[in-house]
Amino acid sequence: MTIADRWLLPDGMDEVLPPQASRMEELRRALLDLYHRWGYDQVMPPPAEFLDSLLTGIGTELDLQTFKLTDQQTGRMMGVSADVTPQVARMDAHSLKRQGPVRLCYCTNVLRAKADPHQGGRSPVQVGVELFGHAGLEADLEILRLALTSLQAAGAGEVHLALGHIGIYRSLVEAADLGREQERAIFEALELKSPGELAARVDASVDDPALAAMLRALGELHGGPEVLDEAREAFEEAPQAVWAALDQLQALHAGVTAEHPEVELYFDLAELRGYQYHTGMMFAAYVPGYGQALAKGGRYDDTGRAFGRARPATGFSLELKQLATLVPSEPRHDGIWAPAEGDGLAEAVNALRRQGERVVQALPGQRTGPEEHRCQRRLVPVDGGWQVVSLASPSERA
Amino acid sequence: MTIADRWLLPDGMDEVLPPQASRMEELRRALLDLYHRWGYDQVMPPPAEFLDSLLTGIGTELDLQTFKLTDQQTGRMMGVSADVTPQVARMDAHSLKRQGPVRLCYCTNVLRAKADPHQGGRSPVQVGVELFGHAGLEADLEILRLALTSLQAAGAGEVHLALGHIGIYRSLVEAADLGREQERAIFEALELKSPGELAARVDASVDDPALAAMLRALGELHGGPEVLDEAREAFEEAPQAVWAALDQLQALHAGVTAEHPEVELYFDLAELRGYQYHTGMMFAAYVPGYGQALAKGGRYDDTGRAFGRARPATGFSLELKQLATLVPSEPRHDGIWAPAEGDGLAEAVNALRRQGERVVQALPGQRTGPEEHRCQRRLVPVDGGWQVVSLASPSERA
Repeated sequence: MTIADRWLLPDGMDEVLPPQASRMEELRRALLDLYHRWGYDQVMPPPAEFLDSLLTGIGTELDLQTFKLTDQQTGRMMGVSADVTPQVARMDAHSLKRQGPVRLCYCTNVLRAKADPHQGGRSPVQVGVELFGHAGLEADLEILRLALTSLQAAGAGEVHLALGHIGIYRSLVEAADLGREQERAIFEALELKSPGELAARVDASVDDPALAAMLRALGELHGGPEVLDEAREAFEEAPQAVWAALDQLQALHAGVTAEHPEVELYFDLAELRGYQYHTGMMFAAYVPGYGQALAKGGRYDDTGRAFGRARPATGFSLELKQLATLVPSEPRHDGIWAPAEGDGLAEAVNALRRQGERVVQALPGQRTGPEEHRCQRRLVPVDGGWQVVSLASPSERA
Repeated sequence: MTIADRWLLPDGMDEVLPPQASRMEELRRALLDLYHRWGYDQVMPPPAEFLDSLLTGIGTELDLQTFKLTDQQTGRMMGVSADVTPQVARMDAHSLKRQGPVRLCYCTNVLRAKADPHQGGRSPVQVGVELFGHAGLEADLEILRLALTSLQAAGAGEVHLALGHIGIYRSLVEAADLGREQERAIFEALELKSPGELAARVDASVDDPALAAMLRALGELHGGPEVLDEAREAFEEAPQAVWAALDQLQALHAGVTAEHPEVELYFDLAELRGYQYHTGMMFAAYVPGYGQALAKGGRYDDTGRAFGRARPATGFSLELKQLATLVPSEPRHDGIWAPAEGDGLAEAVNALRRQGERVVQALPGQRTGPEEHRCQRRLVPVDGGWQVVSLASPSERA
């Protein structure tokens, strides 16, 4: 094997170099501190779990995204975490077992078998929050507000928020009493955003003309807040649950607008992206110039049921590598250059570092200088002591 | 499968709950900030790489510790990182390609196929520094001092530092001109710390009586600084490289003692733990009550050769889960409890959070109270505004 082959990294398994790594660390801290102030406690899920627990009740897409490992100790299959949310739901349901609302946050590497170049490739750094134990709209609104505040903290300017509710689609297909394959066909047509295809598949499998009309309408219901009014008209004869979902979206719209009037709201009632484990409202926040959502979340009640404790849950996540690109990361030139040796030098260097200064000490024979090491100041001997001077200062030239 | 099975975590793949996760985050920040002040730039290595690059020149023990994955995109084998050091050496040699000394630091999850309960099980969080491009003792001394300062920052009191040098063993076996199997037999006897076994194996394979005596002596050379004098006697006829190694250990002893007189130094000239990629001085720092080393490091020159650029290198690493247990982690009761709703409440809560306060807002119908959510203060309406009062304050009882 040639040298060039050896260092080639697998597609989407990226290394992060300075200064980008510092920018990510800065953002990690800003977000985890924000979540702390909102009452969210940090947890660290295991990087790998037995496949049975990792994928229970989660659906096939996440299964395809999960790298599989054999546990040498037990012979059982393990999966490397590809999405932290179900793990945190297990921690809430089984490990914490607290009463009342529980707020948790995390920031951790995950691995995905297939690359999404806009979401950290195959090695995203997932950061997010989950709020368990409250089924009300107030919890969803807190999550929405915190997602928007996170994007602000990361330096996003203009934000577009897309809101949907999986309950509308679910209630309609339930009322239509479809078989698994028929439902799958309609689901795919909605995902493809193809009205013609949708109409053909609905007509082929839904007998009730009112329900068929509603399912066809679903594919068209996306746009500004006026979509909610159009939906009330289109879904006049829909099951009660559809109306409840529309009421929720209306209330979330009011709540978000009250605190974030600058955010542009968009509704897509046929958005099914979260179909894997979501059960209620779903959202995605976009920033102009980024094709993919920067924050994604929604309600996913009862994921903990598989672990013995069904709990309401709502939350969102961000991908830190992508998020860190919102603000250009520049290397800081804040170091103080110290010579390799001198009387009392070690004490002077230690004192500066204790004060929080960055001191880069030369090593004997070193040929690179302060500029290469991002120092614009240096430590020089003055009157038997040590003093920090600017690289360009007169005492330096003397 | 029963519910109990489903949540069982694989041995050594642990989840970290509050408040332990916050303690680890606190420590992560303290250490990365410390490394920044010493001039080390943060990098993030990829969590998985092609096996060829991950294990090149690294030896078989790390191979056995590495979980293997098939890359669906290329069909090639990938390995999940089990040790960050060789990855950072590749980043220095290939990705950064800087001139002169390069100082890098990292903090990241790794996975290991076999569990070490004292070192984060199979999911350690490895934090450490690497200093490339300087072959001198000054670089080794900086690394040693930074390792000791790291342990102080983590709250370690008494620290024992064990120093060794792989060059002594290497020079002796090279002089003895042993075959691969003979060398392996002596290596194992030294690792077993069995003088009888060592003598038998040396006598069976080393003809030169002086060299045989020196290899037998190696197994006995451990203890306080007097070991260095004993070694000079025992190795009087040893190759020059052995003497150079002893001189280095003497100088490191002096350097460490000057700045850290409180640290107890211990020498073990037959310590071969780092044989995988180390090439010079090696160290391990212990804290009473912990059977395993809390910091491990040493010199590992030329690891980058496989990537086209041989560079001197020295560094150390710590395991964050273990390190976080040095100081007990207590949940902080610093939250402010806010009611679910009220006039002007959102503004009051936002203002407190902007000031850095943690505000936990009640959700409608919530049955748990401020105590369960670690709040000793609460936000109450006073004269048309909002005020923070102690839970036990009179205005609260009023």
